[in-house]
Amino acid sequence: MKAVCYDGNKAIYREDVQIPSAKEDESLIKILIADICSTDREILKGYRPDFRGVMGHEFVGEVVESNDASLVGKTVVGELNKGCGKCLYCLTGREKHCLKRKVIGMSKDGCFAEYMTIATYLLHQVPSGLSPEKAVFTEPLAAALEITKQVHLDPSLNAAVIGDGRLAYMIAQVLSLTGISLTVIGKHGDKLKLFEPFAKTVLLEDYYEGDNIRELKAEDCFEYVVEASGNKTGIGLALSIVRKMGVIILKSTYAGKTDIDMSVIPVNEITVVGSRCGPFEPALKLLKEDKVSFPEVELYELKDHEKAFASHAFKSGFRIGL
Amino acid sequence: MKAVCYDGNKAIYREDVQIPSAKEDESLIKILIADICSTDREILKGYRPDFRGVMGHEFVGEVVESNDASLVGKTVVGELNKGCGKCLYCLTGREKHCLKRKVIGMSKDGCFAEYMTIATYLLHQVPSGLSPEKAVFTEPLAAALEITKQVHLDPSLNAAVIGDGRLAYMIAQVLSLTGISLTVIGKHGDKLKLFEPFAKTVLLEDYYEGDNIRELKAEDCFEYVVEASGNKTGIGLALSIVRKMGVIILKSTYAGKTDIDMSVIPVNEITVVGSRCGPFEPALKLLKEDKVSFPEVELYELKDHEKAFASHAFKSGFRIGL
Repeated sequence: MKAVCYDGNKAIYREDVQIPSAKEDESLIKILIADICSTDREILKGYRPDFRGVMGHEFVGEVVESNDASLVGKTVVGELNKGCGKCLYCLTGREKHCLKRKVIGMSKDGCFAEYMTIATYLLHQVPSGLSPEKAVFTEPLAAALEITKQVHLDPSLNAAVIGDGRLAYMIAQVLSLTGISLTVIGKHGDKLKLFEPFAKTVLLEDYYEGDNIRELKAEDCFEYVVEASGNKTGIGLALSIVRKMGVIILKSTYAGKTDIDMSVIPVNEITVVGSRCGPFEPALKLLKEDKVSFPEVELYELKDHEKAFASHAFKSGFRIGL
Repeated sequence: MKAVCYDGNKAIYREDVQIPSAKEDESLIKILIADICSTDREILKGYRPDFRGVMGHEFVGEVVESNDASLVGKTVVGELNKGCGKCLYCLTGREKHCLKRKVIGMSKDGCFAEYMTIATYLLHQVPSGLSPEKAVFTEPLAAALEITKQVHLDPSLNAAVIGDGRLAYMIAQVLSLTGISLTVIGKHGDKLKLFEPFAKTVLLEDYYEGDNIRELKAEDCFEYVVEASGNKTGIGLALSIVRKMGVIILKSTYAGKTDIDMSVIPVNEITVVGSRCGPFEPALKLLKEDKVSFPEVELYELKDHEKAFASHAFKSGFRIGL
């Protein structure tokens, strides 16, 4: 079959990859559409040096074979992380943090291919009426919904999202559905335009005087601040614009140490919540009911992976079995 | 009257300080006993360069005059922070974070004196049967109770306290009352002995191999970690011994930047909660009911303030009007 693989150095297109066979607890999926996540781009920069195999983890597919016969023929999306099932984290509902977990497209063959296998219990059926082009947003939208799973957002207060990329866009949409007063802070005027239908937008530079973050009145600060800029300076801005006793949600992951004054956290009684992958079912519900919307994904053939990875579109991906 | 004052540089003993007069919303308090907090020692190191006046904020006193006649003659303790009453923080229950607040012993004359004035609404009556020597622990115990006010501690899980000083001792006692499995990690074998009646104790060095924190199994990590070491390396240890999706409570405040890998927070979905002053009423209740206990305070005359500040006792203070 055709696939885009990571060879430890770069992405390569192959046509000679063997169709995988499903183990007894797995399903074989025919991939319809697969999107590129920024994690995939990180892999190309060396984020997973030990991984070799088919890349990708955001997909919509059709079940070809399964230990659950009722699923055959159904359109599905799937979660990334399969835990060992035996450790403390697996046994306490934290499978995505299992130290021995297998992660699709990172430590197990992924979805930039015509076929993929996956543990059947990780699958979620796509509701009828939800197109594959929209359903492929389930995984990133779920990551945004992890915020409302972890933190109670009082809708009578206010919130800010730092960042104007894809993740920030998902998060801003989810937050705006609570009814909360929402501000999005980003570097790029053109990207910020996308957020205007549901948020106030502010240019990042407006928070600076020279190299320093300018002093703000309590009224101009936020009860909740989501750091989704993907930039290590974001946490410093977050600590400056959050109200005392407020909550910062950290979505960005970036390597390397950050030099921040941690004493602000106890002195101002700030809460910092780290947040990662999230729940699929509410994401599918919001997508089906058209409560969230996204710019169209730019779709490529697998063989054109270089163009797909280099794309500056809101999101790019692969049209495979569609 | 006699008082210990900060002159911008050091503590000085004076006998010529004028007895303050209570404003219309204030009470005049005859101080019975006053304890030294580590913040007072920080002031001597330059923590509050602009402050001049009577030091101290942990006290038990007797109401001499008050706008609330029912309080006259009563034994009381008092909160530190008086907000402006008008700003966003004051109007949303966050008076202790008011930017214009007056803080006893830090921006308003404190309790290392024979008399002190305080806004009457900041006073709490000491229940009958609770001695001044014990009641003087109300304020630091309240700071420990801020943790259980902010964070729901599931008693079926486990918790660690980093630190073996006074604050750590208060916190460990409060945590142990939840029934949770408790470990205290400290540098000093002799200080750790104090914790043995209600906690497992571990020497800090046991977590290190050379300069590095040794790798731990999930079983040896903790769902809740309270950082109360007063040392900037504490946060690094906290991030290493907390379980994934666990909670770190930051109690220590220390100046300067900390060089930590913040990406651990989103990747492991850690929550970090900054925690400061806390509620007085539950502290008074626990003290009255003898549910917590502390080593005896070493008491000095005001004129012997140098000895009092230099004391290595668990806690030292001043016997004033007792």
